[in-house]
Amino acid sequence: MDIEAYMDTVGRNARAASRRIAAASTEAKNAALRAIAGHLRARQPALLDANAADLAQARADALEAALIDRLTLTAAGVESMAQGLEQIAALPDPVGEISDMKRRPSGIQVGKMRVPLGVIGIIYEARPNVTADAAALCLKSGNAAILRGGKEAIHSNQAIAACVRDGLRDAGLPDTAVQVIETTDRAAVGQLVSRPEYVDVIVPRGGKGLIERISREARVPVIKHLDGNCHVYVHAAADPAKALAIVENAKTQRYGTCNTAESLLIDAAVADAQLPAIGRALAAHGVELRGCERSVAILRDAGIDPAHLHAAQESDWAEEFLAPIIAVKVVADLDAAIAHINTYSSGHTESIVSENHSAAMRFLREVDSASVMINASTRFADGFEYGLGAEIGISTDKIHARGPVGLEGLTSQKWIVFGEGQIRR
Amino acid sequence: MDIEAYMDTVGRNARAASRRIAAASTEAKNAALRAIAGHLRARQPALLDANAADLAQARADALEAALIDRLTLTAAGVESMAQGLEQIAALPDPVGEISDMKRRPSGIQVGKMRVPLGVIGIIYEARPNVTADAAALCLKSGNAAILRGGKEAIHSNQAIAACVRDGLRDAGLPDTAVQVIETTDRAAVGQLVSRPEYVDVIVPRGGKGLIERISREARVPVIKHLDGNCHVYVHAAADPAKALAIVENAKTQRYGTCNTAESLLIDAAVADAQLPAIGRALAAHGVELRGCERSVAILRDAGIDPAHLHAAQESDWAEEFLAPIIAVKVVADLDAAIAHINTYSSGHTESIVSENHSAAMRFLREVDSASVMINASTRFADGFEYGLGAEIGISTDKIHARGPVGLEGLTSQKWIVFGEGQIRR
Repeated sequence: MDIEAYMDTVGRNARAASRRIAAASTEAKNAALRAIAGHLRARQPALLDANAADLAQARADALEAALIDRLTLTAAGVESMAQGLEQIAALPDPVGEISDMKRRPSGIQVGKMRVPLGVIGIIYEARPNVTADAAALCLKSGNAAILRGGKEAIHSNQAIAACVRDGLRDAGLPDTAVQVIETTDRAAVGQLVSRPEYVDVIVPRGGKGLIERISREARVPVIKHLDGNCHVYVHAAADPAKALAIVENAKTQRYGTCNTAESLLIDAAVADAQLPAIGRALAAHGVELRGCERSVAILRDAGIDPAHLHAAQESDWAEEFLAPIIAVKVVADLDAAIAHINTYSSGHTESIVSENHSAAMRFLREVDSASVMINASTRFADGFEYGLGAEIGISTDKIHARGPVGLEGLTSQKWIVFGEGQIRR
Repeated sequence: MDIEAYMDTVGRNARAASRRIAAASTEAKNAALRAIAGHLRARQPALLDANAADLAQARADALEAALIDRLTLTAAGVESMAQGLEQIAALPDPVGEISDMKRRPSGIQVGKMRVPLGVIGIIYEARPNVTADAAALCLKSGNAAILRGGKEAIHSNQAIAACVRDGLRDAGLPDTAVQVIETTDRAAVGQLVSRPEYVDVIVPRGGKGLIERISREARVPVIKHLDGNCHVYVHAAADPAKALAIVENAKTQRYGTCNTAESLLIDAAVADAQLPAIGRALAAHGVELRGCERSVAILRDAGIDPAHLHAAQESDWAEEFLAPIIAVKVVADLDAAIAHINTYSSGHTESIVSENHSAAMRFLREVDSASVMINASTRFADGFEYGLGAEIGISTDKIHARGPVGLEGLTSQKWIVFGEGQIRR
């Protein structure tokens, strides 16, 4: 297979389809989403057969259990994909929204219109449900999509792709609006990320290794979701009950998510009073505490099992553990907390626990992360909790989309001008 | 000089200064801008001496007249830089603006806060006034800046840089918030565009060659301003007087600007009726008409001097002439006009002339350019006319800032959450 010629065709198809999908009515886009959901449900047995083929190959290749778990599609998983499509159909259409119109001294009216980005390339790993989710988000936001899933999921993805194509056709939309790359050749990714004439933005979904590799190679803008080294800072004026509940929830509600807290900063003024209870609560969940000198001393005196208590290494301050481990540091004050976060954080989500308005507002302003919270668990940082309805990822970039990326993050705003014949003097 | 070590120091300084400038009060930033303006005025003779050194070198190197013109600083130019700084001081501060707050079912309040991007790298060519303008826009938007001007302007830029540093110090702000690179070594540019740990976004200001080179090398996001191949489309329902005035203004008011019209599309239904007058008006300005077969026939019959009338080549449809030349094409209808523009345009600015609401609104929605206008001259597409107060450029990118980029384009929005102790269930 000539990968360059193949990707050229895919790219040209996508660019042409993007014009039609950008101009499609909300009704047509929603009809397509519902039709795709219908096809997924109707072809559930075929989808599970395709997935079984992928799983058999994965086991033959002795892939690790976690990957096989992500790859596995069940009847419930198919139903959940279908419901996801219907939920996206129910969201408001962002395309065409006009805002900020102002009359200028020249007499023209200037404002903005929200429009699709054009063609979005999505590169992901083993999860087949991403094929349906990503297709739906791109379609609803008026974009054409080129999807490239992991080679482990090729049969599952092609089966889902057939449902997407048929649903698009049912609604009278071009079936090239969503194309799933049919080859597992790595060269296809190289083409996808380096052809700005065909692709307007790349969204990589997967591990840090994938995202760093894509970012290095890309000649097209990338919306990145790197790691989530999230902090909770218990300020001197923290309500102890809120601090305890928030730290416990942010660390232990789920260990493997990017909005899980990985570092706890506690103000020197309240470390003796509040750290023991927090430490005991975390230890009761089996969380390992990696502390600075002072926090280790406090936690040891508080009776934390030495098996769960260790001295932190410098690298622990920057680590996304994705595990029952938390780094703990006593900081001198608000300035030290902000400086520590702005040095070590990955820029995902940070929360201050404080009853002091000025301190909390300074933290809000000065911490340079995608989400900054006052008196709330970092676990709230996602598209559903923020009201976006669905998300394609959580961006740790600073330009364009930052934080949870929903339909709006897949659009842009162009300037529009209403004139009545005005010319420039 | 060890360029890597030097750029490392510059980068580290900028990152540290960016924290302080991001947290600086509006008063301090405005005081710095006014102080810089004061230093520019007070040191006018020294600035002109430094510029004279650059000009002497440029003449010795036999640089072209247009470049020497851009390089030249006059007493009026210094005053205009100072006034530009004062105008930026008078603009509203975008930093810290909170918007879109919503209460979510969990009880948290979620919204957005406008924040600086961090460190902005600006790469430009011979114009020394860019040093002051870019410094001022970055400073007001709470960003640190690393400026790299053309080697031809090194003495002028260093003299302006000294005024900027002194003004920052006068206002109690770190003088490393704006650093002008002191070496003319090209390797410094390579470093600047490839260190995301130090630089958040690159804004190249200059010719297409510079911007393409930077974009190719960059490992940091780039806000690009490529060419402006702008179109005016005279629709079947155009008011002939408006069409004539808009085409004439869009093409002839200034030839060298990126928002000048380079292509005229005229609907087949009105080409015979309206093209002769338009062609004669353009020819009266000495504009060369490069037409499709039908438009050449109409224009010839209208008595246009054959010296000003030629058959268009395929390449003319994509060309930014920046000269008294316009490409002219008769198109079958609105669909053909939109398709032509979306194929050949550089995505800068397009205008439809039409009294038909539905046609005009379709053009507005479906043309994929940074600015789309109805019944107005493309010459309005700039930051001042749009009410941004000042601009750092006009972006032809689709992500982040699109069209004229003012203070807002140099900022980002982070998510903020106000809680009262909420945890995720």
